[in-house]
Amino acid sequence: MKVGILTGGGDCPGLNAVIRGIVRKGIQEYGFEIAGLRDGWRGALEGPVVSLDIADVRGILPRGGTILGSSRTNPLKQEGGVEQVRENLAAHGVDALVVIGGEDTLGVASELSGQGLRIVGVPKTIDNDVVGTDFTFGFDTAVGIATEAIDRLHTTAESHMRTLVVEVMGRHSGWIALHAGVAGGANVILIPELPFDIHQVCGWVKSRFRTHYAPIVVVAEGAVPKEGELVLKDSSRDEYGHVRLSGVGEWLAREISQRTGTEARTTVLGHVQRGGTPSAFDRWLATRFGLHAIDAVKDGDFGTMTALRGTDVVRVPLDETRGRIKPVNPSLYDEFGVFFG
Amino acid sequence: MKVGILTGGGDCPGLNAVIRGIVRKGIQEYGFEIAGLRDGWRGALEGPVVSLDIADVRGILPRGGTILGSSRTNPLKQEGGVEQVRENLAAHGVDALVVIGGEDTLGVASELSGQGLRIVGVPKTIDNDVVGTDFTFGFDTAVGIATEAIDRLHTTAESHMRTLVVEVMGRHSGWIALHAGVAGGANVILIPELPFDIHQVCGWVKSRFRTHYAPIVVVAEGAVPKEGELVLKDSSRDEYGHVRLSGVGEWLAREISQRTGTEARTTVLGHVQRGGTPSAFDRWLATRFGLHAIDAVKDGDFGTMTALRGTDVVRVPLDETRGRIKPVNPSLYDEFGVFFG
Amino acid sequence: MKVGILTGGGDCPGLNAVIRGIVRKGIQEYGFEIAGLRDGWRGALEGPVVSLDIADVRGILPRGGTILGSSRTNPLKQEGGVEQVRENLAAHGVDALVVIGGEDTLGVASELSGQGLRIVGVPKTIDNDVVGTDFTFGFDTAVGIATEAIDRLHTTAESHMRTLVVEVMGRHSGWIALHAGVAGGANVILIPELPFDIHQVCGWVKSRFRTHYAPIVVVAEGAVPKEGELVLKDSSRDEYGHVRLSGVGEWLAREISQRTGTEARTTVLGHVQRGGTPSAFDRWLATRFGLHAIDAVKDGDFGTMTALRGTDVVRVPLDETRGRIKPVNPSLYDEFGVFFG
Amino acid sequence: MKVGILTGGGDCPGLNAVIRGIVRKGIQEYGFEIAGLRDGWRGALEGPVVSLDIADVRGILPRGGTILGSSRTNPLKQEGGVEQVRENLAAHGVDALVVIGGEDTLGVASELSGQGLRIVGVPKTIDNDVVGTDFTFGFDTAVGIATEAIDRLHTTAESHMRTLVVEVMGRHSGWIALHAGVAGGANVILIPELPFDIHQVCGWVKSRFRTHYAPIVVVAEGAVPKEGELVLKDSSRDEYGHVRLSGVGEWLAREISQRTGTEARTTVLGHVQRGGTPSAFDRWLATRFGLHAIDAVKDGDFGTMTALRGTDVVRVPLDETRGRIKPVNPSLYDEFGVFFG
Repeated sequence: MKVGILTGGGDCPGLNAVIRGIVRKGIQEYGFEIAGLRDGWRGALEGPVVSLDIADVRGILPRGGTILGSSRTNPLKQEGGVEQVRENLAAHGVDALVVIGGEDTLGVASELSGQGLRIVGVPKTIDNDVVGTDFTFGFDTAVGIATEAIDRLHTTAESHMRTLVVEVMGRHSGWIALHAGVAGGANVILIPELPFDIHQVCGWVKSRFRTHYAPIVVVAEGAVPKEGELVLKDSSRDEYGHVRLSGVGEWLAREISQRTGTEARTTVLGHVQRGGTPSAFDRWLATRFGLHAIDAVKDGDFGTMTALRGTDVVRVPLDETRGRIKPVNPSLYDEFGVFFG
Repeated sequence: MKVGILTGGGDCPGLNAVIRGIVRKGIQEYGFEIAGLRDGWRGALEGPVVSLDIADVRGILPRGGTILGSSRTNPLKQEGGVEQVRENLAAHGVDALVVIGGEDTLGVASELSGQGLRIVGVPKTIDNDVVGTDFTFGFDTAVGIATEAIDRLHTTAESHMRTLVVEVMGRHSGWIALHAGVAGGANVILIPELPFDIHQVCGWVKSRFRTHYAPIVVVAEGAVPKEGELVLKDSSRDEYGHVRLSGVGEWLAREISQRTGTEARTTVLGHVQRGGTPSAFDRWLATRFGLHAIDAVKDGDFGTMTALRGTDVVRVPLDETRGRIKPVNPSLYDEFGVFFG
Repeated sequence: MKVGILTGGGDCPGLNAVIRGIVRKGIQEYGFEIAGLRDGWRGALEGPVVSLDIADVRGILPRGGTILGSSRTNPLKQEGGVEQVRENLAAHGVDALVVIGGEDTLGVASELSGQGLRIVGVPKTIDNDVVGTDFTFGFDTAVGIATEAIDRLHTTAESHMRTLVVEVMGRHSGWIALHAGVAGGANVILIPELPFDIHQVCGWVKSRFRTHYAPIVVVAEGAVPKEGELVLKDSSRDEYGHVRLSGVGEWLAREISQRTGTEARTTVLGHVQRGGTPSAFDRWLATRFGLHAIDAVKDGDFGTMTALRGTDVVRVPLDETRGRIKPVNPSLYDEFGVFFG
Repeated sequence: MKVGILTGGGDCPGLNAVIRGIVRKGIQEYGFEIAGLRDGWRGALEGPVVSLDIADVRGILPRGGTILGSSRTNPLKQEGGVEQVRENLAAHGVDALVVIGGEDTLGVASELSGQGLRIVGVPKTIDNDVVGTDFTFGFDTAVGIATEAIDRLHTTAESHMRTLVVEVMGRHSGWIALHAGVAGGANVILIPELPFDIHQVCGWVKSRFRTHYAPIVVVAEGAVPKEGELVLKDSSRDEYGHVRLSGVGEWLAREISQRTGTEARTTVLGHVQRGGTPSAFDRWLATRFGLHAIDAVKDGDFGTMTALRGTDVVRVPLDETRGRIKPVNPSLYDEFGVFFG
């Protein structure tokens, strides 16, 4: 049996750990051939494939990125794309596919699986918003990086009595903002799921200053103010019709400064959050996902996706994740309200 | 209502985050008074108590250790100890207690709870072996430190073609060894739950050398060889009758070296694993445990312990944890057998 | 003898290590009294002073910020300010002063020293641009943080073939940009000392893409394009008449994107670079500066500043540093030209 | 011109940065061919050589170890070794050699240079004890790792009131122990240059306990007690006739415990200190050494070694370093005496 692997979508620490798990167990325990497809679905469409041997995965466990490359190519958006994938895989003798990706990549995997391709999915996103799994790998690393940055900002915030706004990743969900904000001891946490009230934010900022400590505001890049109060020149609507604010961190610092008459500065962590070596937690999770994905292939259990439930890795239907993201639950957010202000 | 807090047993990153969560929510949301008891059960026996206000917990979230101190004092081992705790708490007006500790400390809490004291427990150990919770805080930090050390050892192992043995914490359970060993890409992982065969270990070492890579052996301090093959002069039996080997890391390096004719060195990480700033994951978990513990007090739900199940914090009976530890399941260990050698 | 200490200007990792060194040696070896002045020159102007004992400096070595607070108050800008400092210090019995600060704070110290106050200076800035010393503490920490960020960006840059611009601190000098850029393997480094040619930058970006690697551009916040090519709407002139470009990182990403037709993103590290625990190098240097500063007080060697020369800590005249900054030498910058593009 | 590179002796973070600097500048600026010799002097003796191109050094800057491998082979200890090196290099058309190594490797380089081979040296050791240079690369990384470990131990030391002994690298010199001890706030620092008095050590330990803080003892692996008081069964003499104590860290913990009646534990950091990614300082220094070494080759300035003097990289005679190490000066050690106990 020849099993292909592809990684799609954005960068995420842990991708190489998944690949290594698949290759080691696939070859050593099941005697499979493993083939790497380059640059996500592009490799599935156009080939060629590269043979992956045990020597190819030595030393990749601690490395960020993906040795297979990635892309945002989508075979469903190309005429005859599905058929082309099928033919290309057949031409290269690839019997089954492990697809590692986020909501988009897995959506394609689900569609192709529905059309008969033998596919097992592995969820991947630093945003932690894939439905059906407690956590995705890459998330813990991103939270760790953002938390360390917040730790460092506390010193400066206190020495100079100014508000520091930290913009973290999360276009559609606030998992990174919430976890890093709580772990970093932020005084305000703003997430896309709950449009914020700038008056309330300024109230928290002022109340924090009254304790003679300086406020740290953590904001997800996709967070937006409640519509009514938004000066619309800074905003636009995305593909889902959601209001988007380009540079919400800068916008907040400006508004806080003007409305409270105190100084405010912004740090935009950006891509720093998605690169570099994965945390131990992410390597553990990604390694297990790799090992369990190849088990699913061995079992012929296609159309499934590996998922973490508690401390168990289980299989869930691949189509469960399609077209949906896992939002932060308001009740979870509210647990931490006691720390605001 | 006046709620006392005590922290017992060994050091563990995240203790201060629990205390902060209890104090913030207890005071701000429930209007409780919070009292700190010094040095674990000693403070409960002898008092006095210190009043904990919001200002006292500012800035402690990222700090290792415990602002309340700790000890291994056990009131059950003192004649009239239980009565003395009851009287001392009454004398100081303490109505309920949140007890943060490992198996020993929680065992005392369970006993006292059975005798009518109003107690909520919070599990704590870097070893991750408390029954009833998916994870304990402190564990993720310890695994992260050990993994980073293993990462660094790979470089040297490869440059000099010698075996490097890393002894990590875990007297009774192998959670740290297993997680750090998997995350660090170790070639041999040895845990207390599964006595090892030194011949097999040497076989893995030799097979690793044949790939022109050098072996990394991760061993929990409580791991022991199968009895028959053990030269007994190095070993003893602990309170449970288990064979204990003082300095198993050094012992292994010596045996590997003699039996395989190759060089081997040992690193003993020791207390480095339990000090310093908690990881983001541990701060998140410890903060939630603190918030949920004070909720349990508010609800009058005594005799319970906070626990993580999946992504939920729940309450489990305090006596569930008593006299037992949560071992690494052999089937989990076996998942990673493909990486050995 | 009663010796006052004040810390002025921006936050800088290592300030507490200096204070600790002064207090420990001043009290233990010389039997001085040590008095802390709050919030920089404001404390010297208005008092009161706080007595600093050995217990007050326990545990502060690894902490960022300053236990004495800081401010940008300048007694030279207040009528009668110098006299007021003299009287206030006399009123509190302060015989001599150790002033820890950057160019501005030390400039005031130099002026006051010229007017007869007994002052020893300690240079401090993460920017490393104080004249007369090989390095200032805080700089190594800032470079380490920026380098780690660049390391992480490499992964993402490569996975997605886009330019990543990193804006680091340095309004007037490019030391952080140059050191972090070299240590991080940047492909373009832009510093305030050398106005850049945007055509050349785009040339380096394109040449990097041709190797199938993605470019990392490190830019100091004070770097500016050569005047002729600058669209002036984005720029202004600072107090020295230098052209300043607000948000040079964003500006560069936009220009690179438009001019090369490739994607570009920006990360602004901001205040993350100046907070948090100091590196081992900075703790070593700051500790030595503290010990040597109190030696200078003991020797009555006022009007001097501690400075690093090679591995020696020496004393240089305080007025050497006045009104000047230490720029990156073009010949040093040129050493690394081989890595550009 | 064809320039060979070899790396000899123990592992050291920064070796790859030197190689990269040589390759980039040698090829791009001077049009040299660059040839890598495998495994230190073994490659010079036996060849073959591998051609090093710019693509071969991409991405190696942040990696520990050496892409060329290393060994302790010494051509001077083989009959006809020098002649064999000369012939082998000639056979492969290697015109000049850059030799990166510690005292031993550079000693060989010096001898061969004296016999007419065209050699430029680059000093390398985490121990920082090469004569003629302010710092060697690798040292800052080792100090950083040891300091971080000490930071973590403080937490535990304080929670449990026990002495923690940290054994760091340094067989012949105490640079790592002194720098990490000072940066980590150790209460006792013991170095090979100054045999210690165990009574004084115990005095410091007891005096520290009296402040209600727990002592941290940092000891270089080569530190020894004054001879008279040493139980000789634990010791031996090395090749220089120096008394060596195997496991000085364990020995100290035992002695402290017995003599003071308090608990003491040991952490042996071991090879963790010499592996993994280099610090920003070490990458900067190693990169500059590489660039300056190839400049020396271009200038025909053979028999020299790159060295750091202040902030300048200079060339010093290669034979200056021979057979000597740079000890910690007692007066430098004494600067920090105020922190002991």
